[in-house]
Amino acid sequence: MRVLALLDGTLADPESSLIRIDDLGLLRGDGVFETILVVDGKPRELTPHLDRLDRSAAMLDMPTPPRAAFERAVELVLGNWTGSSELALKLVYTRGVEGGDGTPTGFALGAAIAPKVLQQRADGLAAVTLDRGIEPGLAERAPWLLLGAKSLSYAVNMAALREAERRGASEVVFTTSGGSVLEGPTSTAILVRGRTLVTPPAALGILPGTTQAALFRAAERQGWTVRVEPIAVDDLYSADGLFLVSSVRKITRVHTLDGKQLPDSSALLSELQGLYESEY
Amino acid sequence: MRVLALLDGTLADPESSLIRIDDLGLLRGDGVFETILVVDGKPRELTPHLDRLDRSAAMLDMPTPPRAAFERAVELVLGNWTGSSELALKLVYTRGVEGGDGTPTGFALGAAIAPKVLQQRADGLAAVTLDRGIEPGLAERAPWLLLGAKSLSYAVNMAALREAERRGASEVVFTTSGGSVLEGPTSTAILVRGRTLVTPPAALGILPGTTQAALFRAAERQGWTVRVEPIAVDDLYSADGLFLVSSVRKITRVHTLDGKQLPDSSALLSELQGLYESEY
Repeated sequence: MRVLALLDGTLADPESSLIRIDDLGLLRGDGVFETILVVDGKPRELTPHLDRLDRSAAMLDMPTPPRAAFERAVELVLGNWTGSSELALKLVYTRGVEGGDGTPTGFALGAAIAPKVLQQRADGLAAVTLDRGIEPGLAERAPWLLLGAKSLSYAVNMAALREAERRGASEVVFTTSGGSVLEGPTSTAILVRGRTLVTPPAALGILPGTTQAALFRAAERQGWTVRVEPIAVDDLYSADGLFLVSSVRKITRVHTLDGKQLPDSSALLSELQGLYESEY
Repeated sequence: MRVLALLDGTLADPESSLIRIDDLGLLRGDGVFETILVVDGKPRELTPHLDRLDRSAAMLDMPTPPRAAFERAVELVLGNWTGSSELALKLVYTRGVEGGDGTPTGFALGAAIAPKVLQQRADGLAAVTLDRGIEPGLAERAPWLLLGAKSLSYAVNMAALREAERRGASEVVFTTSGGSVLEGPTSTAILVRGRTLVTPPAALGILPGTTQAALFRAAERQGWTVRVEPIAVDDLYSADGLFLVSSVRKITRVHTLDGKQLPDSSALLSELQGLYESEY
């Protein structure tokens, strides 16, 4: 099941063609997006997602997304959703038509969560490390590279996932050329050592994770130590657990990295899931 | 004036909405494109453009673009064009609908050339150098970064052009972090020293230029030396001319780089224009 709502407050058929061929979102990947998890009718971390949409749009010099219109579209999707208790809600906001009057294109699309994602939440997954070709300092020095913006130009992220599949895995941990952990193509990397959660800093040119932030908030309240600091790839093998987190995948454990089995983190996963769910 | 032709051999209104909101070209910038110059009804370098579309699609693991269907769409656009003698013909080919049957989306769109481009052809332009954050060797080592593919994920290229405008210029020469010249966001860089044309090698992770290739072909026939080799940014200031070339802009001279005036290359421009036009 899928439900599509537009920024003018109307519903539309998600299979109908609504986008012009000269929309810059299509021709140039020129726009931003967010994907939000909805459970039992309640969107999780809606405000952080909308805030991040604003930040991404600002990085692309786009007009500020109209928050009230997006909130209305979200409500419209949720009010018309009759499918499973969990859904993925995508917000899309493009620069609009090439040579047009500058009016952005926007919509909210609710869709069922892919069975593969549900299975990975339960079973964990194999990942590979892939060089993202960026170095510390680059994001700050070269803001035009849009590192850390959630733009519609995701062809590289998708290509990396195909490369993972070619290597017999299903996910990617991007690294700097120097071997520092960055993020997944559509997720945040979290490493656990004892009672400490660690994630790499956004300043490296990665997306600040909404799910990671929620988990860290919950963990800190429960007495865990949380740290935002660089992680060397080699540290991933000796950690108690490596997790890829995102709105839709929630917390997914990596059981195999670059073909090497990691320590069993099943018990740790249950504990983190408990922490995360305690936020809602 | 604009003319739109689809891969099924039909014409469509270029202002109508024909793209689904779940097309991966829109949601992920997941697709490839080409822009071809047409003069007096004749597309220039059509085969090299179609070959490059094939190469870009292969880099993205997409099905080979259906050449006959694209050629038919090109003919359809040109057969229905009643505008100016020159037009820009864009070919777009996306991965199709998310979760669909894998059928790509494709079309050919003919449009008038922007007045700004025509003016820059005549007057030249000011450019700035911007770090593209890639190093020699990266493209070959990390093919999932799609360096050198003409993908629809062009948000960074567009952001770089906005950065140039903020700096009072209208174009960009991307460089490696080490100061080696790469390309423009939508053009190839060519440096002239005496009777020698130089352009950086595609192996650096840049797009092999169709216009650059045509110009080099013509120049070589006329006794010029042509070289494909790395160019240091510092060399741009002492050269006899720096040019940005692309199908639609043809050969455009850079008169100012990073705020510094370059040697007057107007006479050189005329000579190169003559060489280039002799190909057609």
